[in-house]
Amino acid sequence: MTQHIARLSETQTADAMLRARARLVVPGGMWGHLNAARLPEGYPQFFASAEGCRVRDVDGREYIDFMCSWGPILLGHRHPEVQAAAEAQAAKGDCLNGPGEVMVELAEDLVAMLPHADWAMFQKNGGDATTSCVTIARAGTGRRKVLVARGSYHGALPWCSPSVAGVTAEDRAHLVHFEYNDVQSLRAAIEEAGKDLAAILVTAFRHDMGRDLELPTREFAEAARAACDAADAALIVDEVRAGLRLDIRGSWEALGVRPDLCAWSKAIANGYALAAVTGNDRFREAATRIFVTGSFWCGTVAMAAARATLRIARETDVPGHIRAMGLRLRVGLAALANEHGIAIRQSGPPQMPLMLFEADPEVRKGRAFCSAALRHGAFFHPQHNMFLSSAHRAADIDEALQAASHGFKAVRELDV
Amino acid sequence: MTQHIARLSETQTADAMLRARARLVVPGGMWGHLNAARLPEGYPQFFASAEGCRVRDVDGREYIDFMCSWGPILLGHRHPEVQAAAEAQAAKGDCLNGPGEVMVELAEDLVAMLPHADWAMFQKNGGDATTSCVTIARAGTGRRKVLVARGSYHGALPWCSPSVAGVTAEDRAHLVHFEYNDVQSLRAAIEEAGKDLAAILVTAFRHDMGRDLELPTREFAEAARAACDAADAALIVDEVRAGLRLDIRGSWEALGVRPDLCAWSKAIANGYALAAVTGNDRFREAATRIFVTGSFWCGTVAMAAARATLRIARETDVPGHIRAMGLRLRVGLAALANEHGIAIRQSGPPQMPLMLFEADPEVRKGRAFCSAALRHGAFFHPQHNMFLSSAHRAADIDEALQAASHGFKAVRELDV
Repeated sequence: MTQHIARLSETQTADAMLRARARLVVPGGMWGHLNAARLPEGYPQFFASAEGCRVRDVDGREYIDFMCSWGPILLGHRHPEVQAAAEAQAAKGDCLNGPGEVMVELAEDLVAMLPHADWAMFQKNGGDATTSCVTIARAGTGRRKVLVARGSYHGALPWCSPSVAGVTAEDRAHLVHFEYNDVQSLRAAIEEAGKDLAAILVTAFRHDMGRDLELPTREFAEAARAACDAADAALIVDEVRAGLRLDIRGSWEALGVRPDLCAWSKAIANGYALAAVTGNDRFREAATRIFVTGSFWCGTVAMAAARATLRIARETDVPGHIRAMGLRLRVGLAALANEHGIAIRQSGPPQMPLMLFEADPEVRKGRAFCSAALRHGAFFHPQHNMFLSSAHRAADIDEALQAASHGFKAVRELDV
Repeated sequence: MTQHIARLSETQTADAMLRARARLVVPGGMWGHLNAARLPEGYPQFFASAEGCRVRDVDGREYIDFMCSWGPILLGHRHPEVQAAAEAQAAKGDCLNGPGEVMVELAEDLVAMLPHADWAMFQKNGGDATTSCVTIARAGTGRRKVLVARGSYHGALPWCSPSVAGVTAEDRAHLVHFEYNDVQSLRAAIEEAGKDLAAILVTAFRHDMGRDLELPTREFAEAARAACDAADAALIVDEVRAGLRLDIRGSWEALGVRPDLCAWSKAIANGYALAAVTGNDRFREAATRIFVTGSFWCGTVAMAAARATLRIARETDVPGHIRAMGLRLRVGLAALANEHGIAIRQSGPPQMPLMLFEADPEVRKGRAFCSAALRHGAFFHPQHNMFLSSAHRAADIDEALQAASHGFKAVRELDV
């Protein structure tokens, strides 16, 4: 098919010109969670480069990045040690006829780091990992029902996609829903599953878009663990989004609750495409029995990047640093909101913060805030949890707060 | 969990030592299609490096590679121009807050190259692409039934995995099976699907493991197209394995049959992790409506590698070269078999050849052949289609045939 380039005005931005071209050759111009149509006015769709905690769009505008590529960037973009490890591996070969030594080393690293884990397997997408966990749980228990919290995101495959377009009822036939952090609703779901309970699948904390974030209560985590023990089912913690940011031993370790299976992706290779399932010996045989695979799952470069990422995470207390930076942001935002007389709510672990405006059902305030802050160089999100990286320093947070003050001013000027 | 390193004899190979370590921290020591336990005796599990058409295992043994990483390596390992394009992109950034310009350029490249395509979307795994195609077909038609050929491989997700471990009946509730290249069985399946027919999903040619490969007949391809037209359903060609090796315009173009949707992966970025769906305008709206996404799907480096790969494929007649090399191999193997008085069957397009031994139901001959050839430096497969790359030159084929002659000798010496 010959390609039709739309007439483009020379006064348009590079982003606008690329969007016009994209509309011709990509459905809707973009798809999925990176579609800028879901973002407030002024957000770029296309990016040119990134370094540390700064991203640059195709028009050369630079932003302090609070999305970190929606999670993968844990240590800052293009972290020198991660890049060096990846490049050294790439010089030998990436996608080979089998894995490299680095696969064994990475599995050893994960098993040493994660108290729950006796083994690891690798994939490319978070959804590969959550799907593999469910498959392993079903294979290991010989049962079918998987309990999931209403509204939790576990990927965009038909069985778990937030959309129903193109999805059949059978794709979700064996899901049973409960409310996150609600022990009573969890118990009701367990009862509904009955003798067919294969697994409870739960995100490391409640990070559903557009609502206050919630850490799991100890009572909830313990109830999930106890239910799985009683039923000989698998407790699966989905660490895809939270992994390595709260606790490098696993997000539930501080609660004293260890999962049977964990799904990892996003941050584990600091931006290189990788996912992992970790599991305990109870599910080792089942993991051996299922057939899951992918053409690129043993690519050595992403694994070398992951080893470097994990090493830095072990040696430098990444959760501690990004928590401190997140707290600095939180305190600063609270002070600014107060100064401008605007009511906000901040929730979630400071490493993955969310700020919502009170009385903002249509997110008009949130969007106005973000658009104005963006114009002044800070890349926030109005509804999705944000992400800190270890490249964020106090000076970056303070600079972002300057941008945020323009955001609050824009909210005050809204005719609400 | 602390890690227990098995006592390893100093006389063991590096591969054996890595396998011993892997057994502790990876279920079964390895999983999926790269598990060397599925290969004949002597095959390495772990690889150290690769260049051109040569791969090297962790013990320093070098092989002429006829698996090309099970497909992804189209131009030879570490092709300099692909590497340069990838490295230039990596210096700017890979996984950003949105796609780069390269996504638009790559979609334009695909739309320009593929007569069937009006648009493209990108993913990481072949299974992401086949699953997206099915989801788009269901969204576009509002129907559920998907016809698939018995034994065809479309990925390892629960709906299509060759294994049933951990899979529920509902995962496959809406699949209807037919025999590849059998128009009558296709018609029966269409009748069974009735008014609920969403799509016919078919591999570019029949490349089921362990049986003779079969190109699609024109009659079969036309019947599939006509049935989809009559029912307003989607014809999906799964190009994941064959894509770019038979015809860069699409594997069915020479048959005069154009699909509505195509799934691509493996070779399109010469080893970089990438997949794509291409489609026509009939399914553009449906593709806009579904929600599919992944953390790494817009990674710019794999896309830059894909652009370089496609450019080289357009400029150098890759299918023509690898077909010539595959024919040289085929003719050479036939001559050697004849010389040794051994009956073999060769099938498939020469670019993706398969050699099976007559009267070899347990693949004893095939495995003996491969083991011996491996010891002499050629990496063949006894049951899975193999892959040629544009790095294979006549001298490499001739050298591999020397190794193959040892393989035939080993077969002759079997006490069959």
